[in-house]
Amino acid sequence: MTDLTTPDRDPPPAAEETGARRRVVVVGAGFGGIEAARALAASDVDVVVIDRNNHHLFQPLLYQVATAELSPADIAWPIRWILRGQDNATIMMAEVRGVDADSRIVRTTAGDVPYDYLILATGAAHAYFGHDEWAQAAPGLKRVEDATGIRRRLLSAFELAEMTTDHDRRAALMTFVVVGGGPTGVEMAGAIAELARRTLARDFRHSDPARARVLLIEAGPRVLGTFPEDLSAVARRALERLDVEIRLEAEVTMCDRTGVDIGDERIEAATIIWAAGVAASPAAGWIGAEHDRAGRIHVAEDLSVPGRPEIFAIGDTAAVRWQGDRLVPGIAPAAKQMGEFVGRRIADRVACRNAEAPFAYRHRGDLATIGRGAAIVALRRLHLTGFVGWVFWSVAHVYFMVGIKNRFAVAIEWLWSYVTSQRGARLITGSDS
Amino acid sequence: MTDLTTPDRDPPPAAEETGARRRVVVVGAGFGGIEAARALAASDVDVVVIDRNNHHLFQPLLYQVATAELSPADIAWPIRWILRGQDNATIMMAEVRGVDADSRIVRTTAGDVPYDYLILATGAAHAYFGHDEWAQAAPGLKRVEDATGIRRRLLSAFELAEMTTDHDRRAALMTFVVVGGGPTGVEMAGAIAELARRTLARDFRHSDPARARVLLIEAGPRVLGTFPEDLSAVARRALERLDVEIRLEAEVTMCDRTGVDIGDERIEAATIIWAAGVAASPAAGWIGAEHDRAGRIHVAEDLSVPGRPEIFAIGDTAAVRWQGDRLVPGIAPAAKQMGEFVGRRIADRVACRNAEAPFAYRHRGDLATIGRGAAIVALRRLHLTGFVGWVFWSVAHVYFMVGIKNRFAVAIEWLWSYVTSQRGARLITGSDS
Repeated sequence: MTDLTTPDRDPPPAAEETGARRRVVVVGAGFGGIEAARALAASDVDVVVIDRNNHHLFQPLLYQVATAELSPADIAWPIRWILRGQDNATIMMAEVRGVDADSRIVRTTAGDVPYDYLILATGAAHAYFGHDEWAQAAPGLKRVEDATGIRRRLLSAFELAEMTTDHDRRAALMTFVVVGGGPTGVEMAGAIAELARRTLARDFRHSDPARARVLLIEAGPRVLGTFPEDLSAVARRALERLDVEIRLEAEVTMCDRTGVDIGDERIEAATIIWAAGVAASPAAGWIGAEHDRAGRIHVAEDLSVPGRPEIFAIGDTAAVRWQGDRLVPGIAPAAKQMGEFVGRRIADRVACRNAEAPFAYRHRGDLATIGRGAAIVALRRLHLTGFVGWVFWSVAHVYFMVGIKNRFAVAIEWLWSYVTSQRGARLITGSDS
Repeated sequence: MTDLTTPDRDPPPAAEETGARRRVVVVGAGFGGIEAARALAASDVDVVVIDRNNHHLFQPLLYQVATAELSPADIAWPIRWILRGQDNATIMMAEVRGVDADSRIVRTTAGDVPYDYLILATGAAHAYFGHDEWAQAAPGLKRVEDATGIRRRLLSAFELAEMTTDHDRRAALMTFVVVGGGPTGVEMAGAIAELARRTLARDFRHSDPARARVLLIEAGPRVLGTFPEDLSAVARRALERLDVEIRLEAEVTMCDRTGVDIGDERIEAATIIWAAGVAASPAAGWIGAEHDRAGRIHVAEDLSVPGRPEIFAIGDTAAVRWQGDRLVPGIAPAAKQMGEFVGRRIADRVACRNAEAPFAYRHRGDLATIGRGAAIVALRRLHLTGFVGWVFWSVAHVYFMVGIKNRFAVAIEWLWSYVTSQRGARLITGSDS
């Protein structure tokens, strides 16, 4: 067998010098990383995909795990299984500690991995704007464990509200605050309101989940700020129909386990969910690259890192200009396009083919869903809302899922949930650490 | 609203004295507890079901969660949802700390709960025969968290084996020991062997999961010791076809995170699963009742606790004689029969109907499954094996599940898994504490 790691020896000579087969290391198996690996399937290289998890996650639906609609396994697939047919790909489950860019070595918890080309596809976390201590009180939604943790907090709040006799305590337990009015925040707030007002409505004897308070706090002047204005207004009305209280141009100034401050106003809430701000992974620091305030690497036109033509950054790890001063948005289709572009660019270089065209992002549209049977779809010319939008949204999401069985399972969950207003995954598991 | 708990006052007078509505408290929402609550649906009593989880668990399939076949939500339902139509039932998610039997009060983490009748349906854990320190190295399989924890260890072992270059370490990582040859141990060993030899076979590049070693260690002279001997032999052959090494009359004398000792023999193994021995919950201690070595309460013919006619113990919490010196087995149908019996007995007493017949257990049969498309079924006269047994086993298990959607979801998982040899829930989540 080949030894992937080189724990006790000097870095090997670069492949160019020895004529050996080139190795492409991809860090992160999100949408971008998987697409990059796939684009190298027919190329004469070894691909090593490193991820700290064993699974690729369909992140756009993670909020449905957090709100008890789907199981984690419905939206996650083993990376090995996705790439099982690609003989030149090896998967390593390990955490990256750093990169020695001069010696071309990735340092991981499972040893050192030399590379000829490196693709950084490490994704993003939520930004707490300098208040990382808020993360404990107001978890974000990036990993499976985040989603099952939020699910535990949401469902436990209703359980505790049923048992308490203290009026103020019950009011705080029945108050749910979502910070951030982008797609994740809007979808989350809608899903929580539906959970309370429909799914749980009949199940309690002493408290009334239907009267739960759901607040959505947004610093900007409207929800879904990156969407066209008419759709933003539709989303707002849909949320208001679910009795979600929307606070615009409101900034969270403090946040702990008992509630949030918005300027002078205190809102007592046992459950706070953070869906605001973006902070890239520490990848820029690993290679000492220039980055923006959110940690995204300033890449060249071909998505390579200036001065390091063998290192590429894609997806949420990269700051890529689009339409003048805007950035390519941090959504799955963008990451996939970058992954495919970089994979092909490396394949061209290895095969000594000339390729000069810069990366060009094609924006296909924006999607968001607000509760049962309603969604917002903004394609280039076409704007869909309400039930028609929801059907489009459902078909699109099921279509883009990886595994055949999961597509089918998710479709059944949604159909069942739509017909019965019930949810398939109302489990409280684990415990807060 | 009614206050369920009485945090700051003296216990209320017994209902007999005041003429108030009687309250039946059920501790534990397993098969027995749910059935007892249901049997009281039409009765003029208040039913309070207390469980530390928010869900009822279909425990016979928990090993399939541990081996990545099913998701936790496929085999768990919110207790509230199960009893949503029963207006006289209230659910409390709380941990029981003890019982004050003289004052008729259950002490819980959510306050004190007075009762007129008490049903103890608290289930069992695995017994480590005085070596509770082995639990860390060799987890048992009783709760959802146990199953996802074992799944994490199983799948991580294959991941680590792929990355190590140390021959001995890889051998230990690829060795899986199951302790206990009852139905859970047999099903677990079969499922692990299948996971390695079929599901994962194509997914690794440097290690060969198909060559994993799976050992089943049983202290008695045969596997499935409580089944008829011919079926026990069938199970043994089925396991051997999957290359499971069976060690009979073998006793584990030591157990840690690196392996087990069987007498003088040391087996290096990174993954050990405990499926031996039964220890009842601490319920006997709460009420100072007489119990057997495994902690099961010695109950009267009507399943009440001697000297406490208002307290009943059912399921794995009770030691109930059957066929001379045997005990009623610790299986779901037995717990359900006891739950229904006790529920009806209390309903009779409250309605002042005379009921003298003792509890009589009706044994319907034994079931176990060994890998894909093979099962052992022992009904009274009928013994089924192989594919016919597997179909019977599948239909029986799907039939006895609670929720319509879950039946459907599980049937689809099994069909998909049977056809493709794949598994739907290969997720490594959380971390060992």
